[in-house]
Amino acid sequence: MQMNTETLKKRTGKLSRLVKKSGADAIVLAVPENISFVTGFTGDDSWALVYRSRVTLITDSRYTEQASKQCPNCEVVERTEGLAKTLGRIVAGSSSIKKVALEDTSSVKLFAAIKKNIKVKLIAASGLVESVRRQKEPEEVRNITKAAKIAYKALDNALPKLHVGITENQWAGIVDLEIRKLNSTIAFDTIVAFGPNGSRPHHQPGRKKLKKNDTILIDFGARSAGYCSDITRCFAVGAPSEFYRKVYDTVLCAQQETIKNVKAGVAIPELDKIARKIISDEGLPVYGHGTGHGLGLEVHEMPVIAADVKDKLKVGDVITIEPGVYIPGKLGIRIEDDVLVTRTGCKILTKDSKYGFSAPGLQQLVIS
Amino acid sequence: MQMNTETLKKRTGKLSRLVKKSGADAIVLAVPENISFVTGFTGDDSWALVYRSRVTLITDSRYTEQASKQCPNCEVVERTEGLAKTLGRIVAGSSSIKKVALEDTSSVKLFAAIKKNIKVKLIAASGLVESVRRQKEPEEVRNITKAAKIAYKALDNALPKLHVGITENQWAGIVDLEIRKLNSTIAFDTIVAFGPNGSRPHHQPGRKKLKKNDTILIDFGARSAGYCSDITRCFAVGAPSEFYRKVYDTVLCAQQETIKNVKAGVAIPELDKIARKIISDEGLPVYGHGTGHGLGLEVHEMPVIAADVKDKLKVGDVITIEPGVYIPGKLGIRIEDDVLVTRTGCKILTKDSKYGFSAPGLQQLVIS
Repeated sequence: MQMNTETLKKRTGKLSRLVKKSGADAIVLAVPENISFVTGFTGDDSWALVYRSRVTLITDSRYTEQASKQCPNCEVVERTEGLAKTLGRIVAGSSSIKKVALEDTSSVKLFAAIKKNIKVKLIAASGLVESVRRQKEPEEVRNITKAAKIAYKALDNALPKLHVGITENQWAGIVDLEIRKLNSTIAFDTIVAFGPNGSRPHHQPGRKKLKKNDTILIDFGARSAGYCSDITRCFAVGAPSEFYRKVYDTVLCAQQETIKNVKAGVAIPELDKIARKIISDEGLPVYGHGTGHGLGLEVHEMPVIAADVKDKLKVGDVITIEPGVYIPGKLGIRIEDDVLVTRTGCKILTKDSKYGFSAPGLQQLVIS
Repeated sequence: MQMNTETLKKRTGKLSRLVKKSGADAIVLAVPENISFVTGFTGDDSWALVYRSRVTLITDSRYTEQASKQCPNCEVVERTEGLAKTLGRIVAGSSSIKKVALEDTSSVKLFAAIKKNIKVKLIAASGLVESVRRQKEPEEVRNITKAAKIAYKALDNALPKLHVGITENQWAGIVDLEIRKLNSTIAFDTIVAFGPNGSRPHHQPGRKKLKKNDTILIDFGARSAGYCSDITRCFAVGAPSEFYRKVYDTVLCAQQETIKNVKAGVAIPELDKIARKIISDEGLPVYGHGTGHGLGLEVHEMPVIAADVKDKLKVGDVITIEPGVYIPGKLGIRIEDDVLVTRTGCKILTKDSKYGFSAPGLQQLVIS
């Protein structure tokens, strides 16, 4: 697959302006998602050097052919020695590069190796490519939407395969297999929690078996062209308790109210407050995690939707909205959808199923 | 699950000696596998500070209870502010800590955050916990062996589910599901490659469909108590070509000869040479990757088995032996087993199946 040349040029242009602003002349990209965003390249063990409008991809013989096809905007350099050494020679060849930036998510080891091999100054830069990645282009939104549709379809196919006695781990595997049957892959490790296990937001699916009257929490996503979806749904198996139903309705209300308030220009801490207040007003414990997060090539991107983020929503942000209520030993309920921030509000990207956000209420499953 | 207290004490003792040797008084661990190795803790978002025999685990309210149960040797500190701030206060409380080490696989961002919050000197250290992790304890070897048995059993269960027209991606999902059915999880993304796709060592399973006469390469592993297995097998579906059979026999011979030469004290480049020479003597192209790698809590650990490693095999190393032949557009064959290095030779940990290393030769599958 080859990315659109103009799209890649625009991204490089935006990045180069940020690099210049950071005080560096060029930037070394070592994070795979950042490399693929700027160059179109999807292989491993490669770096990109971005200097103004010039992008150099340093790779090895395994990937030269792939890089030439995928990266119409890049000069592809096939290295025969270490990445840092090759980078050193390329930087030395451009006398106008006096200061190079490296992303600060890179390791201390990598920073030291590059420093040793380039003769100009090396500085750490924070979130430059990430902030270009934040505002999604229409094609990226289409891919996230496709990834959401795949996830829903897989869930629809996996639900009839539930039965009494199936383990969390086994059903998580069935969901993953259904995602693969749709020619996709998981966006992150699928979380399946039965009953009170739902109270651990990062629960790892285990040996717990589904009972005739039980509850299910699933937090999962698929990929389309590298882009992730991220969805959480809760179901009752058999008749839920009155309390479970009440908490579910509170979480759904908290989530819907939050989504209604999503709009470009809204201060993030203000948005984060809405669901917390609704939950707390019902006398229920307020969740300890953020209300949501950006979503794209990675499952967690900018912006974070939390109380301490001094930022506003922007047109083109794609974020999750995922309030929850967790009562250890008793229950855990979270409802999560992915939305695109627009000038006038938002567009829900995960609304394509009978289990969608706009469902009238808690779905009750009958299994044998 | 709680680790043996004496085991954890021994590990801390070994690490502390290495920290002292590196010139630091204490070390901050931020890599989850390293934290779990030294403390027994298996949660997220936590750090450990090791100062002589004293281990402090810094975690948050989500994990305090779990940490108290899992970490009998640790002082558990529940933070209410950032990790780096809490660490700063703990370090400030010990006047004898003058220099702190941070693992150099940590990010530049993390290094800067810690530096800002501690008043003493911060240095980067390389592979300290990793080198303690290198020599496996008997319990660790038992876990890797269990992980290998799970992988084999899952493969045995997944092979009958092959059929003409199944995609690589779909069968990879079936293998993963079989691993989950055995109450385990995958050690890394399962690689399934049909026909010539096997020539890409890191092939991502895709839409390619299995044909009546075809070949299959699978590279996969399971986990037991966190420990990984890593196995590659190749199969012929229907009758393979004479050439495929010849290459398979060469790779098997190269692998067996290498395994025969595994023994504590052997220089790693010498071991790495053996398989390459056998393959090259047959006029076949020599693989571009290493001959193997260490295996444990991570799927790639110390030592690397490659030409440029100035090191010897040691008693307690658990390594893969995985030579291959790759001819783009034509075929890819790799055979990989996991072995424990002993004083007199090695013990194969992946020998528990009809598809084991000691199989007489290429397995031919009949599918419909």
